[in-house]
Amino acid sequence: MLTRIDHIGIACFDLERTVDFYARTYGFEVFHTEVNEEQGVREAMLRINGTDDGGASYLQLLEPVREDSTVAKWLERHGEGVHHIAFGTEDVDADAGAIREKGVRVLYDEPRRGSMDSRITFLHPKDCHGVLTELVTSAAPSATTDH
Amino acid sequence: MLTRIDHIGIACFDLERTVDFYARTYGFEVFHTEVNEEQGVREAMLRINGTDDGGASYLQLLEPVREDSTVAKWLERHGEGVHHIAFGTEDVDADAGAIREKGVRVLYDEPRRGSMDSRITFLHPKDCHGVLTELVTSAAPSATTDH
Repeated sequence: MLTRIDHIGIACFDLERTVDFYARTYGFEVFHTEVNEEQGVREAMLRINGTDDGGASYLQLLEPVREDSTVAKWLERHGEGVHHIAFGTEDVDADAGAIREKGVRVLYDEPRRGSMDSRITFLHPKDCHGVLTELVTSAAPSATTDH
Repeated sequence: MLTRIDHIGIACFDLERTVDFYARTYGFEVFHTEVNEEQGVREAMLRINGTDDGGASYLQLLEPVREDSTVAKWLERHGEGVHHIAFGTEDVDADAGAIREKGVRVLYDEPRRGSMDSRITFLHPKDCHGVLTELVTSAAPSATTDH
């Protein structure tokens, strides 16, 4: 069961400048940064609020590190903006399986590694009214509730 | 101060079909529906989770009711997808004023009426790295506070 908005994924050309914009404009701070080689991005997670399922909601700022990454290609077509949205669940495998059975295309056969050692998969945007949709199971409650 | 992701605004061609998709696929239920004549949309709010500032996070599904509404024009150019993101604050006037002073264009001189009698304003997407960004103060921000 999907129990929270886990994050909003925002694609940008320059991660430092975009992090600086969110800090200056709203006071949002960087909670975590990492490079995800498989996804071809480096990213900054800005924690916005806690959620009543024991998790949290973040902005995920994404800059491509390879020209052939999906985020690089997306930026080429769309320019900067909201790239995907993500819902949190305790069991991404069960939810992805149930959603696949409803006829929605799930992009990975098995969940892959996402931010902060989470396990993630994506749903095809054409099956989701134009919204690239991610499902996320956090590594552990402490990964999302403590610094 | 912005204390939560209040909602993700998703533009769609057919509100009933999109509501049905979110119900069938994820089990998300309609919390509220209304027509906002000024914005030229009818909308369904799907409540996803509570937030630790005493508010909640929603998906806001938006269908234009006029061809000259900004959402209709946006759909014409982009097709269905994420139209804007919204942050919740206890004082939209103060936050909009402070953000304007930082050089970010605020689209309304004074906040206008948003979903569920909230007060809202928007920031220019070109000043926000491509993200149309809304600020929201709920009608009764502390009505559901339990922390």
